[in-house]
Amino acid sequence: MGTNYRIDGLQYANWSKKVFMQMRKGNVDAVHVTIAYHENFRETVLNIEQWNRWFEQYADLIVHAKSAREISQARDNQKTAIIFGFQNPSPIEDDIGLLEIVHALGARFMQLTYNNQSLLATGCYESEDTGITRMGREVIKEMNRLGLVIDMSHSADRSTLDAIEVSERPVVISHANPKFWQPALRNKSNDVLRAIADCDGMLGFSIYPHHLKGGSDCSLQSFCEMIADTAELMGIDHLGLGTDLCQDQPDSIVEWMRMGRWTKAMDYGEGSASAAGFPAMPSWFHDNRDFGNIEQGLKKVGFIETEINAIMGNNWFRFFRDNFTSTD
Amino acid sequence: MGTNYRIDGLQYANWSKKVFMQMRKGNVDAVHVTIAYHENFRETVLNIEQWNRWFEQYADLIVHAKSAREISQARDNQKTAIIFGFQNPSPIEDDIGLLEIVHALGARFMQLTYNNQSLLATGCYESEDTGITRMGREVIKEMNRLGLVIDMSHSADRSTLDAIEVSERPVVISHANPKFWQPALRNKSNDVLRAIADCDGMLGFSIYPHHLKGGSDCSLQSFCEMIADTAELMGIDHLGLGTDLCQDQPDSIVEWMRMGRWTKAMDYGEGSASAAGFPAMPSWFHDNRDFGNIEQGLKKVGFIETEINAIMGNNWFRFFRDNFTSTD
Repeated sequence: MGTNYRIDGLQYANWSKKVFMQMRKGNVDAVHVTIAYHENFRETVLNIEQWNRWFEQYADLIVHAKSAREISQARDNQKTAIIFGFQNPSPIEDDIGLLEIVHALGARFMQLTYNNQSLLATGCYESEDTGITRMGREVIKEMNRLGLVIDMSHSADRSTLDAIEVSERPVVISHANPKFWQPALRNKSNDVLRAIADCDGMLGFSIYPHHLKGGSDCSLQSFCEMIADTAELMGIDHLGLGTDLCQDQPDSIVEWMRMGRWTKAMDYGEGSASAAGFPAMPSWFHDNRDFGNIEQGLKKVGFIETEINAIMGNNWFRFFRDNFTSTD
Repeated sequence: MGTNYRIDGLQYANWSKKVFMQMRKGNVDAVHVTIAYHENFRETVLNIEQWNRWFEQYADLIVHAKSAREISQARDNQKTAIIFGFQNPSPIEDDIGLLEIVHALGARFMQLTYNNQSLLATGCYESEDTGITRMGREVIKEMNRLGLVIDMSHSADRSTLDAIEVSERPVVISHANPKFWQPALRNKSNDVLRAIADCDGMLGFSIYPHHLKGGSDCSLQSFCEMIADTAELMGIDHLGLGTDLCQDQPDSIVEWMRMGRWTKAMDYGEGSASAAGFPAMPSWFHDNRDFGNIEQGLKKVGFIETEINAIMGNNWFRFFRDNFTSTD
């Protein structure tokens, strides 16, 4: 029996020693963390500098990983591997040369859009979707060359399908759920999900309440049955978790995520005026110590052990191994 | 017999395919290239982006190296290894966290000053030398941690001696000559040279005419006799080349080097109103194909083969191996 990995395909916590200790208690081997929402290049570098300080300060708990090999090493050393990603192409500004720079600094995922139109593609909140732009095509080519994974979690459907067609490497949805289960704007159509599977990409199931059927009250059983239904559609090999855990964040952060600097008006995103802040997490997933609950839930709906291990992290690990081109 | 390396401790050419081909013709295994004089962080990143394009475009001639191992690999693949360095701490601005960022991007040398007072230390053109500043002490500690080599080529004497004392790793003078031979402001006192040797650092002999006895007319014999005299003072193990070759640069570049953005008035640096531009190189060293002349010159003044190999690059290679901490 080989090693089984427990990997989260997306988190954006208010990072602290507490959160890192919970990662260890939860035996989490690797987490893809968001290090930029709307930050420009220099601001993103400041965020990396902050992470570098955490890597020094909490060297017994976490370590920066840029390759599958470094994730294995982290696991051997009982540390949680941290993988950098951007939810928006804002860190590369209008400069394609910055892709190689941020890749050298450890970025391994980049979303082509975050809800709105970007220089590269159309976000899922726009009314018109014009697909991949001229710069977008060039950026996809360069991301393919470098081994920077294209993430379309917050993109509109046509842009997502275009990206999959243009890209020579697999494209991922790091954190979202199927629309057939919960018809949120951010959840994905069957066409998109099938195309993700066909390109050998990955879908990370989100536990952000706005993506769940019943929101914060969603049951573990419903969540796991949805995973079983998605496995029917996409096959087991393309499924993982991307919890979108935003632990300990103040509500000012959800405003930053939604509004960045692109509007002066209030925008509630997936929320509403009466429920503007971060929604409460479901009872069965509060933090990194709760991955065991999901394992149990998957077992209960009939998944066998190898399937559960695949979903809990082995699929992400294989994907990282095949798709992060590291300089070492 | 082991491998012998041919390494240049400093160049700042107007880079082109022609120059890279000459490096290959000259069997140059590695060159420390200046990628910033007065550039701020973002401008330095733009310079790295330009280098990344050259690495792609001339992949058969040059390769970026961040470790001694990568220099060996380059040699095995008959390519010239390019090592990045800054002549000024301007790329880190006022932010110590940028040191780890630029190290991750490949920087392996940084001068604490370029002629003028910096945030870190005093340059060799200031009338008062107040030694290492508060930030300077912190930056030296961080450079030691990362494996970013402290270069004091353009620093004043007290600052240089202070840096050697504060630093837990060897300090280098990548490109300068002894003052006893040519009393230029940029050349180094016996006290500084002895301290460089005592800390296990390196001196790279410069062929920039303002650092030569007789300037552009300096003879190869005089240059090599000076190296023999310096070997008496410092020992053979701490000597290498740092030609300061500024091949094919227009005179506007020497103005940028001297004046950056710190003055509106004309500053002639080591030149003068009547000789403001780049001086002509001596007849025996025009470009990277001429390292053989230096080898011959060293032989003529009595050096034996192992000593010649040490000076031509083996010392630099050993120094790189011991002092570049790479993440891989």
